[in-house]
Amino acid sequence: MGEKIAVFDSTLRDGAQAEGISFSVEDKIKIVRALDNLGVSYVEAGNPGSNPKDLEFFTRMKREKLKHTKLTAFGSTRRANTLVEEDGNVQSLLQAVTPVVAIFGKSWDFHVTDIIKTTLKENLLMIKDTIAFFKSKGKEVIFDAEHFFDGYKSNPEYALATLNAAKDGGVDWLVLCETNGGAFPDEIYSITKEVVEKLSTKVGIHCHNDGGMAVANTIMAVEAGATQVQGTYIGFGERCGNVNLSTVIANLQLKRGKQCILKEEMVNLTSTARLVAEVANIAMNEREPYIGNSAFAHKGGMHIDGVSKTPRSFEHIDPRKVGNKRRVLMSEVSGKSTVLTKIQKINPSINKNSPETQKLIDRLKELEHEGYQFEGAESTFELVIRKHLGKYKPFFELKYYKIIEENHGIGENTASAMVKINVDGTDEMTVAEGAGPVNALDKALRKALGTFYPQLQEVHLRDYKVRVLDTATATAAKVRVLIESTDGQNLWTTVGVSTDIIEASWVALVDSIEYKLIKDIEEKVRAYI
Amino acid sequence: MGEKIAVFDSTLRDGAQAEGISFSVEDKIKIVRALDNLGVSYVEAGNPGSNPKDLEFFTRMKREKLKHTKLTAFGSTRRANTLVEEDGNVQSLLQAVTPVVAIFGKSWDFHVTDIIKTTLKENLLMIKDTIAFFKSKGKEVIFDAEHFFDGYKSNPEYALATLNAAKDGGVDWLVLCETNGGAFPDEIYSITKEVVEKLSTKVGIHCHNDGGMAVANTIMAVEAGATQVQGTYIGFGERCGNVNLSTVIANLQLKRGKQCILKEEMVNLTSTARLVAEVANIAMNEREPYIGNSAFAHKGGMHIDGVSKTPRSFEHIDPRKVGNKRRVLMSEVSGKSTVLTKIQKINPSINKNSPETQKLIDRLKELEHEGYQFEGAESTFELVIRKHLGKYKPFFELKYYKIIEENHGIGENTASAMVKINVDGTDEMTVAEGAGPVNALDKALRKALGTFYPQLQEVHLRDYKVRVLDTATATAAKVRVLIESTDGQNLWTTVGVSTDIIEASWVALVDSIEYKLIKDIEEKVRAYI
Repeated sequence: MGEKIAVFDSTLRDGAQAEGISFSVEDKIKIVRALDNLGVSYVEAGNPGSNPKDLEFFTRMKREKLKHTKLTAFGSTRRANTLVEEDGNVQSLLQAVTPVVAIFGKSWDFHVTDIIKTTLKENLLMIKDTIAFFKSKGKEVIFDAEHFFDGYKSNPEYALATLNAAKDGGVDWLVLCETNGGAFPDEIYSITKEVVEKLSTKVGIHCHNDGGMAVANTIMAVEAGATQVQGTYIGFGERCGNVNLSTVIANLQLKRGKQCILKEEMVNLTSTARLVAEVANIAMNEREPYIGNSAFAHKGGMHIDGVSKTPRSFEHIDPRKVGNKRRVLMSEVSGKSTVLTKIQKINPSINKNSPETQKLIDRLKELEHEGYQFEGAESTFELVIRKHLGKYKPFFELKYYKIIEENHGIGENTASAMVKINVDGTDEMTVAEGAGPVNALDKALRKALGTFYPQLQEVHLRDYKVRVLDTATATAAKVRVLIESTDGQNLWTTVGVSTDIIEASWVALVDSIEYKLIKDIEEKVRAYI
Repeated sequence: MGEKIAVFDSTLRDGAQAEGISFSVEDKIKIVRALDNLGVSYVEAGNPGSNPKDLEFFTRMKREKLKHTKLTAFGSTRRANTLVEEDGNVQSLLQAVTPVVAIFGKSWDFHVTDIIKTTLKENLLMIKDTIAFFKSKGKEVIFDAEHFFDGYKSNPEYALATLNAAKDGGVDWLVLCETNGGAFPDEIYSITKEVVEKLSTKVGIHCHNDGGMAVANTIMAVEAGATQVQGTYIGFGERCGNVNLSTVIANLQLKRGKQCILKEEMVNLTSTARLVAEVANIAMNEREPYIGNSAFAHKGGMHIDGVSKTPRSFEHIDPRKVGNKRRVLMSEVSGKSTVLTKIQKINPSINKNSPETQKLIDRLKELEHEGYQFEGAESTFELVIRKHLGKYKPFFELKYYKIIEENHGIGENTASAMVKINVDGTDEMTVAEGAGPVNALDKALRKALGTFYPQLQEVHLRDYKVRVLDTATATAAKVRVLIESTDGQNLWTTVGVSTDIIEASWVALVDSIEYKLIKDIEEKVRAYI
């Protein structure tokens, strides 16, 4: 393996500053686990003092055992003219009980004098004091030198002095931040090189994408000697976003011989991107390098001819290296091995050459074409496999449901649902009102099923997400509904797709209930063995 | 003005090879006109021999007078072992009657022997013959050296020999193509520099974005001496796309002193991007540098504080230079000054101490507490302000809507909506079926309003997003619906919150329509001043 480059992911902090992004505590934990699995070195996740949600997150994280990732709390240097011991914001960072803290401070003279309005000298003390304080508490300390490159261009001596102040405080990493995002790779290279040569401290790089060059800027900083790369996993962040780490990781690890994440985890680069996008509830840009759905999609006739003869004729890497796949638009081809692993969980005797494998792959392609996506909805995926292998029987039959919704121009809507089902020859009919049409339907269905399956009482839906698939057709577009359910012990997610949000919800709801009932039966069987 | 860099736009050719893109003849003409207005030097638009649509386009274009743009037909070198005069594909290019032709040929030895399966020597003759043929017809000829960089890395002598063959044919431009998109800026720089030094012919660069570095690669080629930049206007193309020309133009013209498009047209960079996206019928990535809706959107508290003091504290350029605008996202973190800026747009006489300001801030907090979020939904925010300041009157009154949805256990759901409204004393009642309940409601409402406000016909919804707010209560949770609407020129987003997804959609829908009607009135008023 080549030189180690520490990957520092700020999806939960800088990423949360992107337009339209807001994470729940559960969302954050899911993302930390996924990044830990890849072998990301640092995950930055907010400030426990800034809001109760962040505090709850850090409290919950104390119980989590991370394998590779060091959780990092984020804060600023102390305020001007205060003692660091008396700075509430600094103190609150300790509550996170993380092994690492990242402290940002000003490196651009104009920001010191015009934005935080203090003296250049006091700013240096603020940096040094704060870092020394966290070192005395036994933390690994990262200094984020905000606007470092703009600062260096305006006043190189002062910008370097801020780094030296951090060094005097005993800092572990000096991270050069290209905060405004408009710098060029040649500038980044030469300035980073100078810092690496002048200061014998480990250097990191933090780029934004306002000039569309964040990836190149990050790579050029690494070429100049930086050994930490900061960014967000799929690139969302303030304004145009942070550097997209999934691209940086692939570029450095596959093409420049660096070691960013675990070698065996490179194949999970794409699925992790999907998971982050799903949790953040955003539509990923499908043209994103390496991980996008179009990244290896060929359309031009000569391109398709070329890749069919020799893939490298029109592909810069083998898409399987990052867990993505080639798509020949119009006539799709897909990979077997991932699907096989899942099939073998249900029926270990099935192998790559069994006819069921190919049939199931065909069925999956069909479903994906309809808009299904199984990353993050593995319970539905398991049910698809079960239905295909005959390891499934329906638990009830739907006779009908009807929903009526009214609004008379004053007050709130009323939504009610009728459901009629049949279980083993017995009909059951129920009606319920709800906070909306899906809630009414959910309540009516549970009421009906509760007669036959009392264990469903312990199940509740914990999350309900809706993604519009085809933005161009707006309210007539297909929607994908993800439902996360729990019985207090387990957590499972199911998915439904339709142009009708009620129907999509129904499909995911039924999968959720059936999955629970199947798992209960399996558990009983296991108890008897 | 600085050095002239010729911009070569291939939205209509390489861009049409992107997933999901297909242009009509009308579409193509609209895009050519928009690029001509900007002062783009070359627009590449397909091959009249490849299909009747392209032939029709070139025929129509003969009647168009372009001010700045040279229309360019695209084709390949003659086939192996044929006479150029007898090659149908070469001959068909002449039918385009364009002043310029772009001819691509192979520069990577392995492509010659393994993909088009001819000899290295014959390939050189194919290049030279074809170019000499078009020069003899009086054309300006551009040679696209496909896979030039991969070719150079594999066999530099041969790659250079292909350029020399083109030069021997009398070529005007040698364009170095980074076809597979995986190269690094340092490689691009050094190889381009060598070509520029060795061949005394004008050099261009054509990059793809598979490594996420197309912009930087293009810039570095220009730094090495290239004077033509090829790409697509907003970056779509095969796989991850071509280089985004709007980013390249802004970077070179605003920051490196080059002259890419007309100086006075820089302010139309953003609106041209919207137009191209609309014509191509794709949702633009709003985080795109310079032109994206989020490119100058600030969310973090300290960022908002910074830009309100001095814009350059968190903006690499003044957004007005490219016709974009600063947006201060309304989130929990933003304070009084942000709100005030928005109020003053409606009523400039209100200041920080006016009683309306505090009242409105209180109302805003209330709405945020209910689950509203105005970042990215500024149109609803504007309506809230208007309602508060008495600068609003409703355009219609809802009498009622009723929605009926049924599923009988087989086949699909049916969803229908009835709407009854009143405008200035006149009732209108409509009914519509839809792909789902919201779509049915949307259709019925538009049908009813269309009688009174025909201009609503040009509005369509471009995006519909749903976010579940309180995950713990799942289907009974509050949902926030964001609707993005467009009339082809402007883009606005509205928001609605309710536990009932239909009601939330209704609220956002009504805001979207009212916002459009208000803006139309304002425009009329402005026209009279």
